[in-house]
Amino acid sequence: MAGLSCTNLLSMRDLDRQDINLILDTAETFAEVNARTIKKLPTLRGRTIVNMFMENSTRTRSSFELAQKRLSADSLNFSAASSSTQKGESLQDTAQTLSAMHCDLVVIRHRYAGSPYLISQNMQAKVINAGDGKHEHPTQALLDLMAIRRHFGHFDGLKCAIVGDIAHSRVVGSLGYALHYLGAEVIFVAPQTLLPARPDLLGADRVTSDLDSLLPELDVCYMLRIQQERIESSPFPSLREYAMLYGIDRRRLALLDQAAVIMHPGPVNRGVELSSEAVDNARNLLLEQVADGVCVRMALMYLMLGEVGD
Amino acid sequence: MAGLSCTNLLSMRDLDRQDINLILDTAETFAEVNARTIKKLPTLRGRTIVNMFMENSTRTRSSFELAQKRLSADSLNFSAASSSTQKGESLQDTAQTLSAMHCDLVVIRHRYAGSPYLISQNMQAKVINAGDGKHEHPTQALLDLMAIRRHFGHFDGLKCAIVGDIAHSRVVGSLGYALHYLGAEVIFVAPQTLLPARPDLLGADRVTSDLDSLLPELDVCYMLRIQQERIESSPFPSLREYAMLYGIDRRRLALLDQAAVIMHPGPVNRGVELSSEAVDNARNLLLEQVADGVCVRMALMYLMLGEVGD
Amino acid sequence: MAGLSCTNLLSMRDLDRQDINLILDTAETFAEVNARTIKKLPTLRGRTIVNMFMENSTRTRSSFELAQKRLSADSLNFSAASSSTQKGESLQDTAQTLSAMHCDLVVIRHRYAGSPYLISQNMQAKVINAGDGKHEHPTQALLDLMAIRRHFGHFDGLKCAIVGDIAHSRVVGSLGYALHYLGAEVIFVAPQTLLPARPDLLGADRVTSDLDSLLPELDVCYMLRIQQERIESSPFPSLREYAMLYGIDRRRLALLDQAAVIMHPGPVNRGVELSSEAVDNARNLLLEQVADGVCVRMALMYLMLGEVGD
Repeated sequence: MAGLSCTNLLSMRDLDRQDINLILDTAETFAEVNARTIKKLPTLRGRTIVNMFMENSTRTRSSFELAQKRLSADSLNFSAASSSTQKGESLQDTAQTLSAMHCDLVVIRHRYAGSPYLISQNMQAKVINAGDGKHEHPTQALLDLMAIRRHFGHFDGLKCAIVGDIAHSRVVGSLGYALHYLGAEVIFVAPQTLLPARPDLLGADRVTSDLDSLLPELDVCYMLRIQQERIESSPFPSLREYAMLYGIDRRRLALLDQAAVIMHPGPVNRGVELSSEAVDNARNLLLEQVADGVCVRMALMYLMLGEVGD
Repeated sequence: MAGLSCTNLLSMRDLDRQDINLILDTAETFAEVNARTIKKLPTLRGRTIVNMFMENSTRTRSSFELAQKRLSADSLNFSAASSSTQKGESLQDTAQTLSAMHCDLVVIRHRYAGSPYLISQNMQAKVINAGDGKHEHPTQALLDLMAIRRHFGHFDGLKCAIVGDIAHSRVVGSLGYALHYLGAEVIFVAPQTLLPARPDLLGADRVTSDLDSLLPELDVCYMLRIQQERIESSPFPSLREYAMLYGIDRRRLALLDQAAVIMHPGPVNRGVELSSEAVDNARNLLLEQVADGVCVRMALMYLMLGEVGD
Repeated sequence: MAGLSCTNLLSMRDLDRQDINLILDTAETFAEVNARTIKKLPTLRGRTIVNMFMENSTRTRSSFELAQKRLSADSLNFSAASSSTQKGESLQDTAQTLSAMHCDLVVIRHRYAGSPYLISQNMQAKVINAGDGKHEHPTQALLDLMAIRRHFGHFDGLKCAIVGDIAHSRVVGSLGYALHYLGAEVIFVAPQTLLPARPDLLGADRVTSDLDSLLPELDVCYMLRIQQERIESSPFPSLREYAMLYGIDRRRLALLDQAAVIMHPGPVNRGVELSSEAVDNARNLLLEQVADGVCVRMALMYLMLGEVGD
């Protein structure tokens, strides 16, 4: 059986169509494992994985950690708060240190774009980008793809809107590209102030600021999170106005096609991107996305580390 | 073999007499395991337990974590400091997220009373309350009951004083009720400023502010911790005065009956609730309580999760 | 097979020559384990080890944690930030609590010298000093010894300079003594302001402030870290001046003998103790030291806990 074509996962651009299918197919088998009472496989026993989360995170970190435990890997956590990066150690030296400790894989989230690449250049361990600045978040894209494929069975020709804070989103950097690459039609929906200079480089087939007239045609309506913590000066007058223009509420829910789905990377700002009706609506895939997150991460780590011949 | 009558442990009121006996009897078997060199059972292998400690804690969190490791469960920790509750995620959404990740049990400590109930309503995982505001702390009560039962062999007719900061204590909310329910006589000892409006609802048979005249009659003298971190404006003039009126020192030790025991939920403020003589006195059950804490938590998690038929 | 002559490792002075050889020989066998794909032994299954790091640390804490996981021990972490030492609990009471929970070993780092001794007096669990104030850091010395022995094959007659901030270093407290004890010649290189009152008590055979004329004769040039976080008022005019007088740069690299090695406990302040050329130079043992750290810690915990007859 063929493995992945890449050593690290720094960007969705590292993966070709075959890689993506392999990850999603493998993830399906892990979905069965996660539904069991005894959610544990011996696959990565004795392998060392470091979770290096230099920005706060609950959901992504927990998802990776659970995936590691369910594959029986040994995981080591270190966070910005308690580590000696406060002593001024460079990322490069940290990477070499972890490498010398015979770590097999480093999962890194960092506020600077390119950090995962930097450490991958300085260590023998493999690297997964768990979010770097405003750049990419490839495992988020993979879980989104799994949720979409589970629902629609394919990507080709799906009409997918990505709505909101495009400019500050690392989710778009991975997902927009991936959906476009896999044959979906990608539409960015945002005011000018939240758009990047070159939407096409992030996979956009077209751009609009008019959500309402787009809603009836959509298959997937992907709502981005307002990342207040990453915005220096607010690009919109108020959250209330943002919600009115780009939030999904009862009225907009009614405009969506019956077969369309709502997605969101979480955590939701209730009443902003989604009203409570939209969060608790059966047409959204939010919890499916969370469940699939554990599965694609298990699949990815299994494929990156599991198949050894020693 | 019958299991517990309840799904979650949110309150001591969830447990009937048979449940309590079942937990304490099971805990006794785990006391033997903990005394071995190899303290490990495969019972909860492949089960996922989340420790969600939204308030700082060493003792309770460590006790739960050790209990989980000794039962071979996979545990996931997240604390207020490093989680995305700082991103404004609601407890309800966190609960649904953990549920989607197929967690089996959540152990939650939170500064708001009722939080464990709230998350139990939003997830399929089971929930243990590890302390919610000033409300309850049922596993503390269970370990106290185990320590008392190991020492006296029964609860019926035991004269138990609970001394100190009754009004701000979540320990009393669970323990006062439980001792009363199991047939002990419960006496609250505190100044008016540290008493709740309705002591009877917390299990008190009577109330007094005169510790000295009570001491000779007691079987159990349970000293509460002054929780300076949870008191907004001090209800007593000084720690020194509090110690003089309600602390156990050499003089009060002498007033206690030879067969009586001193208890404290820990950590002790030495020189306040207990003088160093009282802490280091063989008549206190402080370390017995700590040891029993691991045992009752193992028993509880085993009974809540362990007996599966899949 | 004989075990260690000591119960705890509080100081390098606890170990005699036979102990040190036993630890280093055992560590060599673990070096092989760490080079495998499946880095896991069942040796310490069911043993409970507490990592109590009351000062921030990445490297030492990670090294201990990896060592524990690779020996299958159950480890419990608690750090200053999240523990109830903030509630004012004394170290003595924390020790007794961990003891009552049947912990087998406590690894402690603390800003006060003597803390490891204090807790060892209050618990049945064994204790490893992972750095106490400016006093000692014995496992650092052990890993340094392993790196030196792997390179030179022996200690006898080796000429070892320890350069820099001698007065504030807990590394010297352990390593200076050990090298001297094992027959090496130990030379402290520092300005008067960074020297302790009695260098001989830390193992120094002689003291100098002239690094340049010493370099050609050295076998080992051990560079200490400037511990800015532990220096109250700066004992030297500037980092730049310090680097000029006591840093290894391209010029000083050339003065070293071809067979000499550079060592550093890490993390390096690049451009201060070592220039980037010196850090990335094949003649330094920095990464060897890191790798050996995991090995000696595995060996130590195995020898302290592993050989049981129950």
